[in-house]
Amino acid sequence: MKYFTSVNDIGNLQQAINEAKSLKNNPFAFEHLGKKKMLALVFFNPSLRTRMSTQKAAFHLGLDCMILNAFNDSWTIETKDGIIMDGKAGEHIKEAVPVIAQYCDIIGIRAFANLQDRDEDYNEILLNSFKKYCDIPIISLESSIRHPLQSFADIITIEEQKVVNKPKIVLTWAPHPKALPQAVPNSFTEWMKKASVELDYEFIITHPKGYDLADEFYSNCTIIHNQDEALEGADFVYAKNWSSYTEYGQILSKDTSWTINTHKMALTNNAKFMHCLPVRRNMIVTDDVLDSSQSIVIQQAKNRIYSAQTVLKRILESM
Amino acid sequence: MKYFTSVNDIGNLQQAINEAKSLKNNPFAFEHLGKKKMLALVFFNPSLRTRMSTQKAAFHLGLDCMILNAFNDSWTIETKDGIIMDGKAGEHIKEAVPVIAQYCDIIGIRAFANLQDRDEDYNEILLNSFKKYCDIPIISLESSIRHPLQSFADIITIEEQKVVNKPKIVLTWAPHPKALPQAVPNSFTEWMKKASVELDYEFIITHPKGYDLADEFYSNCTIIHNQDEALEGADFVYAKNWSSYTEYGQILSKDTSWTINTHKMALTNNAKFMHCLPVRRNMIVTDDVLDSSQSIVIQQAKNRIYSAQTVLKRILESM
Amino acid sequence: MKYFTSVNDIGNLQQAINEAKSLKNNPFAFEHLGKKKMLALVFFNPSLRTRMSTQKAAFHLGLDCMILNAFNDSWTIETKDGIIMDGKAGEHIKEAVPVIAQYCDIIGIRAFANLQDRDEDYNEILLNSFKKYCDIPIISLESSIRHPLQSFADIITIEEQKVVNKPKIVLTWAPHPKALPQAVPNSFTEWMKKASVELDYEFIITHPKGYDLADEFYSNCTIIHNQDEALEGADFVYAKNWSSYTEYGQILSKDTSWTINTHKMALTNNAKFMHCLPVRRNMIVTDDVLDSSQSIVIQQAKNRIYSAQTVLKRILESM
Repeated sequence: MKYFTSVNDIGNLQQAINEAKSLKNNPFAFEHLGKKKMLALVFFNPSLRTRMSTQKAAFHLGLDCMILNAFNDSWTIETKDGIIMDGKAGEHIKEAVPVIAQYCDIIGIRAFANLQDRDEDYNEILLNSFKKYCDIPIISLESSIRHPLQSFADIITIEEQKVVNKPKIVLTWAPHPKALPQAVPNSFTEWMKKASVELDYEFIITHPKGYDLADEFYSNCTIIHNQDEALEGADFVYAKNWSSYTEYGQILSKDTSWTINTHKMALTNNAKFMHCLPVRRNMIVTDDVLDSSQSIVIQQAKNRIYSAQTVLKRILESM
Repeated sequence: MKYFTSVNDIGNLQQAINEAKSLKNNPFAFEHLGKKKMLALVFFNPSLRTRMSTQKAAFHLGLDCMILNAFNDSWTIETKDGIIMDGKAGEHIKEAVPVIAQYCDIIGIRAFANLQDRDEDYNEILLNSFKKYCDIPIISLESSIRHPLQSFADIITIEEQKVVNKPKIVLTWAPHPKALPQAVPNSFTEWMKKASVELDYEFIITHPKGYDLADEFYSNCTIIHNQDEALEGADFVYAKNWSSYTEYGQILSKDTSWTINTHKMALTNNAKFMHCLPVRRNMIVTDDVLDSSQSIVIQQAKNRIYSAQTVLKRILESM
Repeated sequence: MKYFTSVNDIGNLQQAINEAKSLKNNPFAFEHLGKKKMLALVFFNPSLRTRMSTQKAAFHLGLDCMILNAFNDSWTIETKDGIIMDGKAGEHIKEAVPVIAQYCDIIGIRAFANLQDRDEDYNEILLNSFKKYCDIPIISLESSIRHPLQSFADIITIEEQKVVNKPKIVLTWAPHPKALPQAVPNSFTEWMKKASVELDYEFIITHPKGYDLADEFYSNCTIIHNQDEALEGADFVYAKNWSSYTEYGQILSKDTSWTINTHKMALTNNAKFMHCLPVRRNMIVTDDVLDSSQSIVIQQAKNRIYSAQTVLKRILESM
């Protein structure tokens, strides 16, 4: 494995899940793999879970970490070609990436959507520039449109928690005060589509009108616009807010009738509640649901260690 | 030891001091203890001494560190129950703490007083939330009302520097341009009260009217409002500014007649001058005192390594 | 070696270059040297290359790093003597330095010019305070007027790339939208003057009127104000912007006829193009030059690891 930027990089799901579970049981088993190697984590946006879980994963593998916080004004990067750099950006991605790559063995990069320019976001400019301008392994720590380490952790969690052979998983939009990227729902959707084939999952999306995801993610998905109907018999409810793709970056609804509460959960097959965190209490989900034993959000966060560690281990093994 | 958040967690003082001195003589003697373990340092406020000395202590013990700076706008945390999170705070402490706790073995947390709401500060909300919402060891890196690693370092320093069996220690208020928390005087006071019993110290507090500490700290203390009288015969002068507890968070005085200078020091028994740093020169204390051999502020700062290391060692031993 | 703050600390150039090349061939050969030692990197200004390359160098030497970012408002430091500290600065350099020095074995410090007060900048106040107020080894990670780790990396790169025995090196001013310090040209100049003697380099400076460097650097240099003439037959073109020394910190020109382009490069002896990075594309240098095989800016950045590592190795060996 050289790149981990989408579901296409993971190969066989069952095998990846087994590898993650094995690392969870014996985290230091491959501690020799990362010795004398350096992982650079480049954050164009803040991070708690991703930062800490990836550092922990690296630690388990004996891999050193350097962290570069690039989300202050101190370092603004230019990505456009041919521009006269007489403005704010002090460095071009064409220099920044090969330079950083010389100081480490693997790069993890986080670069959120700006929600201003849809084409720019959906081209994953920063992430792809890292792939283009250096020759070392690259891991997405959440790009403008995907969060594959999260989705991988989600699927590990589902496998740990499922009590039926063919679990029904419902991704539901929920309200939020701010405009959020589509990275998590996009990514979860593409992992669930693969899981539908390889692991026999049933996957349904529900959201208010206007919140359709981009075709590349949305195609071949089952969409049910009535949330109650969608939740019926669900084994897992994955709540998440996202802003509109069609009216790009806009908040079209803050309708709290979409908030997951005990009435909603009562429609399900005693479903587990999932969210990638951080979660807005009593907007996305009510306290009683989140504080109940049905909530597995903390377990999801824990599995961020093992999704990252599986990916790092595979990269180290192929170096 | 599982928690270190106040003097109540330290046990026998002489034993703790001996342990610290022994670590100072042989810092790497317990380097095996922290192997494969991770300490997370969560800073809700900036830090120089605490950050560096705790990292150094961890390094001596073979313990890895992850640092989370949570004092920028990027991560605002909600601590109130039952709230609809449609405002600034993006994450609730109920999720944040158990998540962080899964990524490490010990958590150190710094969370200053906001000086707005006395009840909130004196309930040490953030610190106590960390104890409440996870099950791993917690160390205070300065809470809203206590700074026990500082007080422990102070007492190590006094033990190293004392030349009489029953040293007289005077804590004196001194002026400062900004409103500061009461954490350092509160904490120093409760450690000195314990030292009065166990180590035969004499402890006196002096401050202008209106600067009484909270009862839980102040009770059973000897208070002398005349600074000159209080300083008479002192072996150690500990200067520190704090804002008012009764008129909470207010600056009631900037009276520079309380500044420690050579005339004040002349009243003492050739006392050592102490301060937790950072110190405002010529506000808290004049240059000539701070630059003299009577000042032991640098030595205090060095002992921050060994107070932290003693605490971390005890925690690691009991894991 | 105890200090590395200018070319005067490097000794014989050929020997230093050989040492660096040897470390580049075998980076972990001295991994034992730094064990149980701590390097503190204190940044009063942001850093990418310096931070990462120095961390990587330390990693190669088995040396641990602590990083202190002191460029936010959270920690403002006073350097003047005798001042009443009732303003913004919360800590005096007289305490800060000895405290930091107690927590580590070596200090690296970055402190840019403020471009307000020339005397202050040219006295390298912060850097010299670190030398003055503690007794441990100090490395400049770029001071107000010098960037010796950069210059050392530059000379390693020239040695790797030169194809003639007596290379002609031209330092040329180039336009930039912001006022920049003189640290890089100053430092490069003093290293080139030494290289002229020890390594038989020919060194020429070219710049618009008003951009003379300070006498201590400029003296005994060959200056040619006509850029085209200066570039003739050059083997290396080192472009860099700096603000005026005489009209201190002022931008006197943004004349893009000084931008290095293919026409300029055609005047040279198939010269290599150098810059310390970050570089403003199409201001300092055009895309076609920077993207050509003549550009060795990425190689320069890589050698930042080995200049830092050579310095750290020498310091560790002499401890």
